[in-house]
Amino acid sequence: MAIAWSKKPASMEALSLSPPMSPTVILTQDELKKIAAYKAVEFVESGMVLGLGTGSTAKHAVDRIGDLLRQGKLTNIVGIPTSKKTQEQALSLDIPLSDLDSHPAIDLAIDGADEVDPHLNLVKGRGGSLLREKMVEGACKKFVCIVDESKLVKHLGGSGLALPVEVVPFCWKFTANKLQNLFERSGCVAKLRNDCEGKPFVTDNGNYIVDLYLKKELGDLQIASDAILRIAGVVEHGMFLDMATTVIVAGELGITIKNK
Amino acid sequence: MAIAWSKKPASMEALSLSPPMSPTVILTQDELKKIAAYKAVEFVESGMVLGLGTGSTAKHAVDRIGDLLRQGKLTNIVGIPTSKKTQEQALSLDIPLSDLDSHPAIDLAIDGADEVDPHLNLVKGRGGSLLREKMVEGACKKFVCIVDESKLVKHLGGSGLALPVEVVPFCWKFTANKLQNLFERSGCVAKLRNDCEGKPFVTDNGNYIVDLYLKKELGDLQIASDAILRIAGVVEHGMFLDMATTVIVAGELGITIKNK
Repeated sequence: MAIAWSKKPASMEALSLSPPMSPTVILTQDELKKIAAYKAVEFVESGMVLGLGTGSTAKHAVDRIGDLLRQGKLTNIVGIPTSKKTQEQALSLDIPLSDLDSHPAIDLAIDGADEVDPHLNLVKGRGGSLLREKMVEGACKKFVCIVDESKLVKHLGGSGLALPVEVVPFCWKFTANKLQNLFERSGCVAKLRNDCEGKPFVTDNGNYIVDLYLKKELGDLQIASDAILRIAGVVEHGMFLDMATTVIVAGELGITIKNK
Repeated sequence: MAIAWSKKPASMEALSLSPPMSPTVILTQDELKKIAAYKAVEFVESGMVLGLGTGSTAKHAVDRIGDLLRQGKLTNIVGIPTSKKTQEQALSLDIPLSDLDSHPAIDLAIDGADEVDPHLNLVKGRGGSLLREKMVEGACKKFVCIVDESKLVKHLGGSGLALPVEVVPFCWKFTANKLQNLFERSGCVAKLRNDCEGKPFVTDNGNYIVDLYLKKELGDLQIASDAILRIAGVVEHGMFLDMATTVIVAGELGITIKNK
């Protein structure tokens, strides 16, 4: 497939994956995700301990790592999956796996995100794996986040989609109300996430997800983070502050790599 | 039983429950706990929504509330239990029960503590119910804490016993190491709590408890609290800062009531 991408200005590094030509090919969102994922896997070296992300974008990266292992282009990789789903995918690809208890220091993690702000702060967890992702990605020397350009926002919550919070099932309504009241000024509405059968969605850790919908900015994100974590009943939230070291953005006009 | 208690000086209010006489009766720790519990129940009024604590001291308070309901001296009480164990006890005593979702505002909670510092900050959770206790007691207009005098410490952690932290079972060793490293300067040793069969103790919320043993003070407790909560994998910790409005201390020399 021939794709034309123009160079991005200023502090962003733009890469043309193929020679410039007229931009007649419209890429699907999934193709953009795949391009970002494959680019991220170029950071992987043999012998690395790798955090394996969860979600539709990260899935492409895990597939690619499996391909390169099978082809012998990568060897001696240890994968640390961030969800049961990714664990199953990696096992099906014969990627050797371990966990944080055995490998508390991770060389590189590759994972998607639901939102990326200009400071590379992220919202994650719309897939429901935010806690394990945060544990693994907090233990990485390098965390490469891969997104298509629709995920870029001016401020976290700016997409109008959910900021997920993992809560204990015990009296979740009480916790949801506390969360909604906490961000009343931001026009927050808190909703329990349901699965496709209309029952509460249950995380890998046996908890529920309360999704926060925000009309305005949260203000200082670190203060907002601490305020959420101080609510008894909250296990973790989906803001990943100051964690991504690199963000790879795939858009119609090319790949942009943003570094911390 | 005739008990002699002398008046305590300064800002403490001391109560003699019986006329002074020579202090020849040595009270057991359990008797002291019962005295504190009964005193706390004097704060209960008919029509109240009550947070019912967990543990050997709180058990006496719940028993007493059951007695007074049965005698008709209290009516129209709604109890909000802080653990499955307390729920069972209260049900056996015919105390009407509800939960935080239905009663998000609680008039009064009565519960024990493992440590009480001079500012009425507490350590709780050696019984394993810290999360539900914190949710309930954080929703109270008045939180009366009941202890025997052995629980008084100069600073939290000062008893040499555990500061409990509830963590998700997933990669708990990794989380325990993070906790131990966080308080390295305080000589912290982190240990997983086991049950009587040597298996990990499991909380009512399906989580594990990591007990922190500290050799030195933690420093600023609010900073320590936020630092613990920022560790992904931590659900809640056993420091109850600025939550108790009254502490009732039963000692050999009398009851002391400390108010915020």
